[in-house]
Amino acid sequence: MKDERLEKLARVLVDFSVKAGEGEQAIISGGAAAEPLIKAIYARLLQNGAIPIPQVQLSGMQELFFEHAQDIHYQKTPPVVRSMYEQADAFISVMAPHNTRALAGVDPGRQQALGKRDKAMMDLVLGKDRWVLTLFPTAALAQESDMGLEEYEEFVFEAMGLNHEDPVRYWQEKSEEQGRLAERLEAAREVRIVGPETDLTLSVEGRKFLNSTVEHNLPGSEVFTGPVEDSANGTVYFGVPATVSGRDVSGVRLRFEDGKVVEAGAEKGEEYLNAMLDADAGARYLGELGIGTNYGIPRATRNILFDEKLGGTVHLALGRSYEETGGQNESSVHWDLICDLHDGGELYADGELIQKNGEFIGYDFEER
Amino acid sequence: MKDERLEKLARVLVDFSVKAGEGEQAIISGGAAAEPLIKAIYARLLQNGAIPIPQVQLSGMQELFFEHAQDIHYQKTPPVVRSMYEQADAFISVMAPHNTRALAGVDPGRQQALGKRDKAMMDLVLGKDRWVLTLFPTAALAQESDMGLEEYEEFVFEAMGLNHEDPVRYWQEKSEEQGRLAERLEAAREVRIVGPETDLTLSVEGRKFLNSTVEHNLPGSEVFTGPVEDSANGTVYFGVPATVSGRDVSGVRLRFEDGKVVEAGAEKGEEYLNAMLDADAGARYLGELGIGTNYGIPRATRNILFDEKLGGTVHLALGRSYEETGGQNESSVHWDLICDLHDGGELYADGELIQKNGEFIGYDFEER
Repeated sequence: MKDERLEKLARVLVDFSVKAGEGEQAIISGGAAAEPLIKAIYARLLQNGAIPIPQVQLSGMQELFFEHAQDIHYQKTPPVVRSMYEQADAFISVMAPHNTRALAGVDPGRQQALGKRDKAMMDLVLGKDRWVLTLFPTAALAQESDMGLEEYEEFVFEAMGLNHEDPVRYWQEKSEEQGRLAERLEAAREVRIVGPETDLTLSVEGRKFLNSTVEHNLPGSEVFTGPVEDSANGTVYFGVPATVSGRDVSGVRLRFEDGKVVEAGAEKGEEYLNAMLDADAGARYLGELGIGTNYGIPRATRNILFDEKLGGTVHLALGRSYEETGGQNESSVHWDLICDLHDGGELYADGELIQKNGEFIGYDFEER
Repeated sequence: MKDERLEKLARVLVDFSVKAGEGEQAIISGGAAAEPLIKAIYARLLQNGAIPIPQVQLSGMQELFFEHAQDIHYQKTPPVVRSMYEQADAFISVMAPHNTRALAGVDPGRQQALGKRDKAMMDLVLGKDRWVLTLFPTAALAQESDMGLEEYEEFVFEAMGLNHEDPVRYWQEKSEEQGRLAERLEAAREVRIVGPETDLTLSVEGRKFLNSTVEHNLPGSEVFTGPVEDSANGTVYFGVPATVSGRDVSGVRLRFEDGKVVEAGAEKGEEYLNAMLDADAGARYLGELGIGTNYGIPRATRNILFDEKLGGTVHLALGRSYEETGGQNESSVHWDLICDLHDGGELYADGELIQKNGEFIGYDFEER
């Protein structure tokens, strides 16, 4: 049985996100549970004359890795995998976990070691700029979101704009409005975020605000930059709970001085938080400031790909910045934390209020 | 839930078939339905310090390929795949079809074109000599065998010797007896196969008989060679039905003159047979003569990996020979056809009767 929306999604990913054409090799990586979407992408690539390279992960392999891997396995990315990523032209990744909490019991130090092992490969993919990350609705993700599977499928497809007859046009319109917002922010020197237990200022001077719709994430719906590395000052409370590497993390509080996290606490997952902050020198600095613009997502679901896009939220990432933003922070970590501004929040650009209580002033991103 | 026999199988494949050790990269390729075995192999490789590279195929991808592929997709193996196979040290393949008849409606010409496309890569794998092919019991294979899944699982594990406490010792003992048979055959100049509608002579002079237990197939249980290319003369009837590339082929009759098939017919699948014979110049010549020695397999199940090992059968392959045998036939085809000698069959080496009615004379391969 076919869901037409999967074919629409495949078309957006192949034709617009990574633009894979004649003779180009495109890696499709994803969990086996994403089978229907992987097949739709595979077929679309063939139709375009591109060369699909499926890389399918079985559920439970990561647990097995952490259970049996020896020192040698943490030393470097397997050379054949490395060379596959070096040679490929485009990368489409599909999150489709079978169990979102499978890694809850794994030592965070090992998870970091794996992240460090693969950092160079990640940089390579990011550097080619033809990558996109999306999600296929699975029972595990529905469970994590307190929904039934069918309900969750509708949630996902709605957030991705796939109920629109022409999703590409939908995203193009969104992109225009986001472009105006990005332009305004790029003209600013300083961004200030105010909200419950939150008052943080960041310099964005000279940095580029990127306008994300379908280029790298589906759903996109954010504008983001890499803030000036030593500029963050103040406190911030991340009230949106998350499931990160298989564990609960919520109620994170951070205090910044001259860009660096100098105080950190969490209602849940504090041990993991501290392990991440200590991963390397760059992990205590911000790599990203992002502003969500998707009002088609009704609520947070503990999944970063969707939650960071929520209209009325901003997110800050600890660790690695994206080069295209002008950000220069290096780290094996890139961890987005989300701050909800619906309840008394304010967002300022050089002192001008551009969002209040989660509603933009002067920009229209509402769903109709 | 774990079946201990899968761990035994993984150990045989990793430790004895391909001998993958510290730092060596081993590709595990197989259908997603083989998940439990793929995981067992993955864990065993990690335990040995080898680097597992899983390459998992989703069901239905081949059909999609043939439906959507364009000319460009038949021109060459995707370069990233080619280079992966060039760099890897060992190759473990697991057959685990979800649907054995999925390709029944595909043009055999396209299947051949794909075979030709990948021939160089196949040669590369065969050339490295560290490859093994096995099977994981799926519902589709059970169905093809007229069995329930559990019954089929027992059938498979029994044929693989996994009910023995130490399967490696079991295979070593088998190997000794096979070694005696191979030595006898290697000393012969001519092999003659006699049976229902069958009287064929082949020269094996100067060729090597290989003794197969766990080196390249699991189950192994055959001795085989590449006959002298222009030597086959006579007729042969292949009474064991097969499912080949998704279609029924049975009752194949071939007549050879000076090594070449000059007359061919089949009760079922004649069109496919003719397409295969016309694939290329080498497809009408024999690449292999094999003699099955596995009396732990109770009957044929339309699956070549098992059927060609049946005690009391011989098989002949049209097309490519294995270099190690001394065989020199080149082709993109390698198609094993099986001749049952239980009912009135005789096998001669230089005129000496070595098997009658499917029972060896002077060699003991019976299961106890």
